[in-house]
Amino acid sequence: MQYLEDKIRKEGKVYPGDILKVDSFLNHQMDISAFRKMAQEFKRLFGDENITKILTIEASGIGLACITGEEFGVPVLFAKKSKTKNIAGDVYKTTVKSYTHGILSDIIVSKEYLLPDDRILIIDDFLANGAALGGLIDLVGQAGATLVGAGIAVEKAFQPGGEMIRARGVRVESLARIKSMDGESGTIEFC
Amino acid sequence: MQYLEDKIRKEGKVYPGDILKVDSFLNHQMDISAFRKMAQEFKRLFGDENITKILTIEASGIGLACITGEEFGVPVLFAKKSKTKNIAGDVYKTTVKSYTHGILSDIIVSKEYLLPDDRILIIDDFLANGAALGGLIDLVGQAGATLVGAGIAVEKAFQPGGEMIRARGVRVESLARIKSMDGESGTIEFC
Repeated sequence: MQYLEDKIRKEGKVYPGDILKVDSFLNHQMDISAFRKMAQEFKRLFGDENITKILTIEASGIGLACITGEEFGVPVLFAKKSKTKNIAGDVYKTTVKSYTHGILSDIIVSKEYLLPDDRILIIDDFLANGAALGGLIDLVGQAGATLVGAGIAVEKAFQPGGEMIRARGVRVESLARIKSMDGESGTIEFC
Repeated sequence: MQYLEDKIRKEGKVYPGDILKVDSFLNHQMDISAFRKMAQEFKRLFGDENITKILTIEASGIGLACITGEEFGVPVLFAKKSKTKNIAGDVYKTTVKSYTHGILSDIIVSKEYLLPDDRILIIDDFLANGAALGGLIDLVGQAGATLVGAGIAVEKAFQPGGEMIRARGVRVESLARIKSMDGESGTIEFC
């Protein structure tokens, strides 16, 4: 998506260690007009798929998922990173490794809201190692719901997550796919 | 707001220990058409205040904050619960006690995005003990920004947070204010 690539080039900052900082518009401060354009693109890509629900994971996927849910006219469900006393009853649970924080954490969704007849579109802001996306796919499988695909804002295509998950037959649509980044010069090359 | 009170009466579940579960539409599964109506109400209440930015806290405030940000046409900033390596540079930081999880955690926002000339509207899904809201107000103060007020979806008015924060002169507008709940009969009384 040219719009998003341009925005990443203009506002993103590249640091050594393959770190891309896009927190001016995507995952700390959020530019909702950009989210709307991205959501419309997800609607164009998945609009014929009879999506019944959007699934994401806290925290930084929630905003984009909500705007996307409004485009599709369906509810949005976010997986929570730990069990709190505010969720009663049974949950689907899986374990996800965060490469950013270096920890394992359980993610859960309530069985009440992820149903066997749901047709699920997963939305997330980033795809790199694929840990979060893999966990969400696992939850969809546990529920016996249909996974239609995943819509991602930014994919680090030089990391293994996207390839690994596409190899499992999952349709993954990333709006910007980064081929390489150079932390010294600050340049970004897209696929 | 009659619409939200009706929705809580219809979809909310009350459990002993003053627990209100509204995760069918507010803070796990999210009904974006309901968020839109709530955001329009926040716009009606604060529309003349020249808001420049919405501030919320991860995770469950983010969706409502994003829809509200779109109503106001301003960016949305969410405070993060711990410092990750993806945020470089200086941050404002404060400590918040979570009554749900029983832990203390640091919340941070980047100094880059919370500015002295910002006019801030805080949005959150719940107000009970006021810990999260108090922390966000502290961050706004550290930045030297102007706090216009706080828009809350559901306030447990029988808990001390709302009164405490209004006593500090902060304008707090809660769309549904719960006077009392009965975990035995499952009934809810609004203010």
